[in-house]
Amino acid sequence: MLTSYQLFMKACEGQSGLVRPPVWFMRQAGRYLPEYRAIREKVSFLELCRSPELAAEVSLQPVDLLGVDAAIIFSDILLPLADFGFKVDFPDKGGIKIGFDLSAVKLKSFQAGMNVEATCQAITLLKGKLKDKGLEVPVLGFAGAPWTLANYIFEGGSAQGGEFKAAKKTLWTNPNFVKDTLDELSEMTIVYLKSQINAGADAVQLFDTWAGELAQDDFHEYVLPQYKRIFQALPKTTPKILFIRGVAPYLEAVASVGADVLSLDWKVDLTDTWNKLKSINGNTIRCLQGNLDPFLLTSSAEAVKHKTLKIIEAGRSLSGGHILNLGHGVTPDANLNAVKAFVEASKSYNS
Amino acid sequence: MLTSYQLFMKACEGQSGLVRPPVWFMRQAGRYLPEYRAIREKVSFLELCRSPELAAEVSLQPVDLLGVDAAIIFSDILLPLADFGFKVDFPDKGGIKIGFDLSAVKLKSFQAGMNVEATCQAITLLKGKLKDKGLEVPVLGFAGAPWTLANYIFEGGSAQGGEFKAAKKTLWTNPNFVKDTLDELSEMTIVYLKSQINAGADAVQLFDTWAGELAQDDFHEYVLPQYKRIFQALPKTTPKILFIRGVAPYLEAVASVGADVLSLDWKVDLTDTWNKLKSINGNTIRCLQGNLDPFLLTSSAEAVKHKTLKIIEAGRSLSGGHILNLGHGVTPDANLNAVKAFVEASKSYNS
Repeated sequence: MLTSYQLFMKACEGQSGLVRPPVWFMRQAGRYLPEYRAIREKVSFLELCRSPELAAEVSLQPVDLLGVDAAIIFSDILLPLADFGFKVDFPDKGGIKIGFDLSAVKLKSFQAGMNVEATCQAITLLKGKLKDKGLEVPVLGFAGAPWTLANYIFEGGSAQGGEFKAAKKTLWTNPNFVKDTLDELSEMTIVYLKSQINAGADAVQLFDTWAGELAQDDFHEYVLPQYKRIFQALPKTTPKILFIRGVAPYLEAVASVGADVLSLDWKVDLTDTWNKLKSINGNTIRCLQGNLDPFLLTSSAEAVKHKTLKIIEAGRSLSGGHILNLGHGVTPDANLNAVKAFVEASKSYNS
Repeated sequence: MLTSYQLFMKACEGQSGLVRPPVWFMRQAGRYLPEYRAIREKVSFLELCRSPELAAEVSLQPVDLLGVDAAIIFSDILLPLADFGFKVDFPDKGGIKIGFDLSAVKLKSFQAGMNVEATCQAITLLKGKLKDKGLEVPVLGFAGAPWTLANYIFEGGSAQGGEFKAAKKTLWTNPNFVKDTLDELSEMTIVYLKSQINAGADAVQLFDTWAGELAQDDFHEYVLPQYKRIFQALPKTTPKILFIRGVAPYLEAVASVGADVLSLDWKVDLTDTWNKLKSINGNTIRCLQGNLDPFLLTSSAEAVKHKTLKIIEAGRSLSGGHILNLGHGVTPDANLNAVKAFVEASKSYNS
């Protein structure tokens, strides 16, 4: 029987027709789990991110409680910005706030600081905990992509109404400043991801939640070069996963940026996307990840099982790898039985 | 020289290489215009929708003040719901509220009431005003598509965070009820659009702002059949425009629902979309509409002019029609000079 580590790595390498798809999901260490909420009653979100011991503990919860095949390190895409001179605040109620004082921001001089180091220490601790339990489960590192980070910076935190007007206005009125900022954020992201890999991360995922809001020409000008730069700077042997919410319009563009795995939102069809990718020159994508609508986990276990099996069947028919995941992060109000049904659909799959 | 009416109709028929693209834009009668705000200081949004005289007057403003090539009637996609037994409220601050009392809702017995009649009277008045001014400008009618209307109904108004969890949960837990509701909303939409055409609308647009949030299989099951039903019920000779925000994942599906014009959001490329549509069996789309990022209108006239000219050039290279428009509605904070630059880019175009 293949271990979780073997299943995951073979899928990333593009192996088709595995006995079942490896399964994990975005934000799997999160509020929908009572055991996570119990820890968050004692510490704030930032305290949790900055405590290697606690971050490793909550990262392990979905492995222990649900049996997922990969453990993503508990952290936040905005955390490294705190080492970059930004003031990052995660209030318990209301959106994220980011203080943006250019004079305090150490552009062009990024050094990993206490925040990045905490995440890296947590990865090493998590690897040890898994080994102690005899679990061969890969550990995933991650980072926010430059455009998504820039959005939070220019918006001063969570965007109002999801429209990203402030970020776009900055882009159109001061494109050189935006390009410089994106360049610096890429360099920061490279340092951050390399540090996570050195600490033991078996694969890394780049999250570009908000790039899917850009016009085609802006995407090509401001987003694509940063992907290439980041993926090229990372070790060839480490699987690289790219997630863009709303990826459909940019499929041709992202096929050749150097990612091994493309993580799909729930709006696209797995088979259709795979066929399109296969026809693109220079395509490096060997595996698709996804793509259940995360909001389905707020409904019933039966509905989840039915739709997840359809995704597993579609994934098995690809001539490449498939990692079962959601189309975006699980929400805090997810029904725990529905979440269990999602993981079980893969674990008990019988082809 | 071709009149606005001729330019618009020829584009809808799929004629390529017109001397310039006809131009209008979504929400062109709106808060960004001082003349509109002056009227709204005297009457509420609902009073404006329900006054045929005032609705015709504000619909005419962008023709008079900006010189757009089409006048869309001032109304709201939720207005006909008020004739359907729903309590629809548009507070000046905060989101839209919809009272959803099933016992009061006249499912299966839709009759056009005072709200639908007001919009139809406004169309007839607007036609008269244009004629009096000697302006050959087409009048556009419109309606919200069933899934978008159902979203507002199930959410009880504007969705929280754009996630539409309540609507999706209803869909997954009670699919038959949702299908019945969508069927009834389609019947209502057919009555509504036919009434507008009878009142003088030269073309109609179906707005499905939120269908772009659905998983591929849900889109096929709940959205596609309603498009077909609505477009088939309308007169063959009236141009039918379909707008979906986030259309990219569903392009194959919507090509053959019977629309003449596909109105694109700003994320897709005009040429690329046209080429994809041409390769789809049963494609009825003869013209593309769009697709400038509406938030660009909050920036400078220069940036708008530059990007709009690129869209005009792409539109002229299609083997079909092109109507210049935004990728979604103009926002209240748009810069009037930028809006003027958008319209002027077409009006002064010199191929």
